[in-house]
Parts: sequence; C-alpha cells; structure tokens
Amino acid sequence: MSESFHLATPPVAGRAELVGDEARHLARVLRARVGDEICVFDGSGRAWPARIATIGRDRVGLDVGPPLAAAVPPLPLTLAVALPKGDRQKWMVEKLTELGCGRLVPLVTHRGVAEATPGALERLGRSVIEACKQCGRNTLLDIAAPAPLAAVLAGRDPAALGIIADPAGEPLGPLLAGHPAPIVALVGPEGGFTDEELAAATAAGFRRVTLGPHVLRVETAAVAIAAALAMRGSRP
Amino acid sequence: MSESFHLATPPVAGRAELVGDEARHLARVLRARVGDEICVFDGSGRAWPARIATIGRDRVGLDVGPPLAAAVPPLPLTLAVALPKGDRQKWMVEKLTELGCGRLVPLVTHRGVAEATPGALERLGRSVIEACKQCGRNTLLDIAAPAPLAAVLAGRDPAALGIIADPAGEPLGPLLAGHPAPIVALVGPEGGFTDEELAAATAAGFRRVTLGPHVLRVETAAVAIAAALAMRGSRP
Repeated sequence: MSESFHLATPPVAGRAELVGDEARHLARVLRARVGDEICVFDGSGRAWPARIATIGRDRVGLDVGPPLAAAVPPLPLTLAVALPKGDRQKWMVEKLTELGCGRLVPLVTHRGVAEATPGALERLGRSVIEACKQCGRNTLLDIAAPAPLAAVLAGRDPAALGIIADPAGEPLGPLLAGHPAPIVALVGPEGGFTDEELAAATAAGFRRVTLGPHVLRVETAAVAIAAALAMRGSRP
Repeated sequence: MSESFHLATPPVAGRAELVGDEARHLARVLRARVGDEICVFDGSGRAWPARIATIGRDRVGLDVGPPLAAAVPPLPLTLAVALPKGDRQKWMVEKLTELGCGRLVPLVTHRGVAEATPGALERLGRSVIEACKQCGRNTLLDIAAPAPLAAVLAGRDPAALGIIADPAGEPLGPLLAGHPAPIVALVGPEGGFTDEELAAATAAGFRRVTLGPHVLRVETAAVAIAAALAMRGSRP
C-alpha cells in the first residue's frame, strides 16, 4: 500500500495511532488488515514506515519504524489571501499544497466576501491533508488564524520581501528573480483592495505587483504567485 | 453595463448579433433593453462598443461602434495536456484562460483517463468564453482538436522550446529564463508518460523538466507552467 496516512500526533516509543477519517479510510475503505505495511507522516516534515498492529472501530494502532529521509522544506512563502467563496477555497488550498507554499493566512479585508469560520478552516485543513497524501508532501500547509491586513503588515518578518497584488503595480517576475529571501504576498478580494489598504501596505514597505494583463480571480492570483516561486527554484 | 459579450461571428458594416447563451443571458438574466450599451468581442483579440438595437427570442441585434484599442496578445504557449477528469478540466481551462495561455491541445497518451469528446470540448469552449468575459481577455484560448503525442511531436514549430513534464527532469525556471521563443509544453496523465513516450519526446528534441519536488496533479502542472511563463514576463 503506497498511500501515506496522517498522524494527528507523532509516534511515541515506536507506537502511533491513526484516528478519525484516516483510520476509517484505511480500515473501511481500503480494508487494511493487521500486518499490512503503510507510510505515515505527522505534517511536520517527518515520515515513517509503519505496520498495522490493531484495527478498532475508529482507531488503527501502528508499530512505527525509524524515520524516513528528511522531507523537502516548504517554499518560504506566506500568502495572505482574502478567501474566495465555496469550492474556490478548496481548490486554492489543494494547489498551494501541491506547489509547496509554506503558509496561508486568511486575510480580512474591507471588501472580502468569505468569512474564515472555524468550520471552513477545519474543512480547509482536511483538504491540506488530502493534498499532502496525494502529492507526497510531508509538511502540512500551515493555515493560520484569520488576520486583518494591519496585523499582517505589522507582523511581517523584516527580512522578507513583501508584495501586494495590484493591477497597477510592477511586474512580479523580475522582482522575484533577485530575491532569495522569504516572501509575504497579499492577495485581495474579488473587488480588490481599497486605496487605503494599498496605501497602508505601501507605507509598510510592500511592493505593488501586477500578475499580468488580465483580471485574475483571487485563487488564480494566489496559485500563480506560488507557481512562479516554485518554478523559479524548482528543485529536481 | 461593463460586462463583455461574445460574438460568434464578427460585425459586418456596423451590425452584429448575439446568439444562444450570450443573447439569453443579456436579455433574460440581465434584462437588457433596447438602447443599452455593452461591449462585445469576437475572440480574435478585437472588441467593440455596441448599442442594443433589437431583442428577439434568442437573438440580440447590435449597432457596433469603431473597434477599441488592440488587446494584449496571448502568451506564446501551447500546452498539450492529457486531460484530467470532470471539474478539473474546467478549472484548468478557466485558469489557463486567465493566465493568458495561447493554445491547449488535448493530448492522447497511453495512460490517459479522459476522452476529449465533442461534448466535452464544447463545454470547455464555453468555459473559455466565460473566463474571457470575467478576466477581460479578448482573445479566446484556442482549444485544438485532440492529438496523439506523435502528432504533437512532429508538428512542433522548430523555433519553439519544447518541454515535457517529468519528475526526473531539469528545473523549469532557469530554462524558461533564457528562452524568449514560443514554448510547447507536454503534460502527461495522472499515471505519467510511459518510458516510450518520454523517449520519443526526447528524441524529438523536447527537454524533460521537473515542476518541483511534489507529484503535481495534471491540471496543477499545466497551470504552473502557464503561471511561470506569465509571471516571467508579466506585463504591466
């Protein structure tokens, strides 16, 4: 069985347990049996081979082997995004996970349309795990607590390149090419950032960048920034 | 009314007609009236202001003004992609349209899962029009007839850079940076290209490129290539 399974808590003394959806999927859908060998990861970048020791109603007990080789670290990219609605959220999170984005901050803006409720964040978290399993990523995309723009501006790592998506900005490509530093990228809602929000970001040292001649949807802009960064340094 | 509407045929002598979905959307959903002013485009990069002259059951007659300023040309990118299934097809086409990709060829491969039926192609064509209207693009993404790999390899413009997605390939970023030429990019199905397909592409001069450390879904790979190219030369 080549699929990976996500551990809610890391192994202790060679034992671990799959719970909830992961346990049910393994036991009921895949009909795993005691003795079967699988691979598990805890979302921090670590992964282990494991053998199924017990199968309970909603829990699968595992004997865990020595950790596998270290995983590829995520891209040093924090995307603060005014979440789009419905399925577009899920798509965005899936693609950002595949592309290696490190952190997603649901951005609270003046014209935002979707509230990052606890329920929505929990669903997005499940999408991250699913995407990690599918694409072979061992470090979860970190979905932060929703934050207003001012907090993101104030909290930026001073070593990071800050950019804000703005159709009137400078091209992204040349800017990325010269910056090996971490990147904090802000993507506004469908209606765009307000002039005040753009001014606040500029005052905080963020560069305004355009993502091309067309009006990108929110999730397209976020994925395009992640792809540009991932492809720039695409690691063999 | 700021929305653009797609003309199936270009204006003749200052007159044009919206038909089918476009006419119904304008007349029934948006409840346009004779005398209203709209913008129309024919998908070739041209756009015009227009005034509604007549509203019929499934047709809207228009008086068309002089053409608007020339549109941004699409990216010189042909993506030949083994289509993913269902909604992922639609999502890919929407994103490729927004990002400015010039041409999509449904690629017939050994391990392909989705057949590009006439019905599927028609649906994708409608997605292209919708995305063009939404993102302000006046040139349709050209969806070509489905083609086997051998035909795409044989038909490549000799001036183009040919690349084929392969986890064992070289990084894409540095390769793109040095190539202003048109690009033909091949993306295989979920199960990957066969060794024979990779060998045929290499023999035809295509470079194998990796898109990063994770296993990207088909649509993610296609969108990532388009984004990397769009962001490289992102035009203000």
